[in-house]
Amino acid sequence: MDDLTKKTVKQRLASATGHLKGIERMVDEDAYCIDVIKQVQAVQAALSKVSTLILDNHLRTCVTTAIRGDEPDERERVLEEITSVFNVSSKL
Amino acid sequence: MDDLTKKTVKQRLASATGHLKGIERMVDEDAYCIDVIKQVQAVQAALSKVSTLILDNHLRTCVTTAIRGDEPDERERVLEEITSVFNVSSKL
Amino acid sequence: MDDLTKKTVKQRLASATGHLKGIERMVDEDAYCIDVIKQVQAVQAALSKVSTLILDNHLRTCVTTAIRGDEPDERERVLEEITSVFNVSSKL
Amino acid sequence: MDDLTKKTVKQRLASATGHLKGIERMVDEDAYCIDVIKQVQAVQAALSKVSTLILDNHLRTCVTTAIRGDEPDERERVLEEITSVFNVSSKL
Repeated sequence: MDDLTKKTVKQRLASATGHLKGIERMVDEDAYCIDVIKQVQAVQAALSKVSTLILDNHLRTCVTTAIRGDEPDERERVLEEITSVFNVSSKL
Repeated sequence: MDDLTKKTVKQRLASATGHLKGIERMVDEDAYCIDVIKQVQAVQAALSKVSTLILDNHLRTCVTTAIRGDEPDERERVLEEITSVFNVSSKL
Repeated sequence: MDDLTKKTVKQRLASATGHLKGIERMVDEDAYCIDVIKQVQAVQAALSKVSTLILDNHLRTCVTTAIRGDEPDERERVLEEITSVFNVSSKL
Repeated sequence: MDDLTKKTVKQRLASATGHLKGIERMVDEDAYCIDVIKQVQAVQAALSKVSTLILDNHLRTCVTTAIRGDEPDERERVLEEITSVFNVSSKL
């Protein structure tokens, strides 16, 4: 991960962590269920963006290097990984 | 939320928070991007289960009370809320 | 399903069917892969809306009747079904 | 798209089309709402697999060619497209 992506990803993960702690407090204070669900869904959406951000950086660095490289096995491996995370993301 | 659901939801939120902190450390230690994405996706899946758990409890308590009650506006409101969270969940 | 919902659902299903046939033709004519994927994703989004529409109608009819009724097993059954389709929708 | 992928994709699209027509008939015959929703969700899951299949083929052909090629703009374009369909897939 390049430095800027790393910094942004860490900030967003820290923000999601803070959000989750806030949701724990909501549950403690007997907040309305639907409001809790909406906040949980907001964290899920924020995490989706984090994944997209990391993938974008990964494509531009490791994947590009592997595809331009001379090892067919390595190329195959990075492409399979992309398909695999795409497949999981469509099931979340 | 009944006490058991509340306890379970809080435990799972705390577990997701711990998981996210672990992912922050992975990023700090330059873990492989795809491994980071997979961990983020695991947290998203765990949060989906939390939402389902809260919704299930909500249906059995607030929604059942509202639907058996005598206020049409209140019934309408709880039903619209279910449709709304369902709609968001299919976009996550 | 009430008549209006039925009509709307049928129209949208027919529209999704037409859309899929158009995508088959795109594949036949060697359209660019990403354009095909985008069209497939558009059909998926349209189908999500159909599910939400049916669920909304179901909540106002069958679920309301069951919850206001006197059979605890029937109430339990309809509530479990809602949780189940919600759970699946968050995995699509 | 290579010939095998094209054939498989066309078969699966035709199968999804047939499935949707069956769902239209279910609606006509007043099938139970939850059963209709489950069938719609099954088509959505099948379409997700079609997208993954096309993406996998696209990565091995167009994307690999572009990344190994000498045009930075073309490389940038194909990578942005992957991020874009990934982003949409996480919202379906």
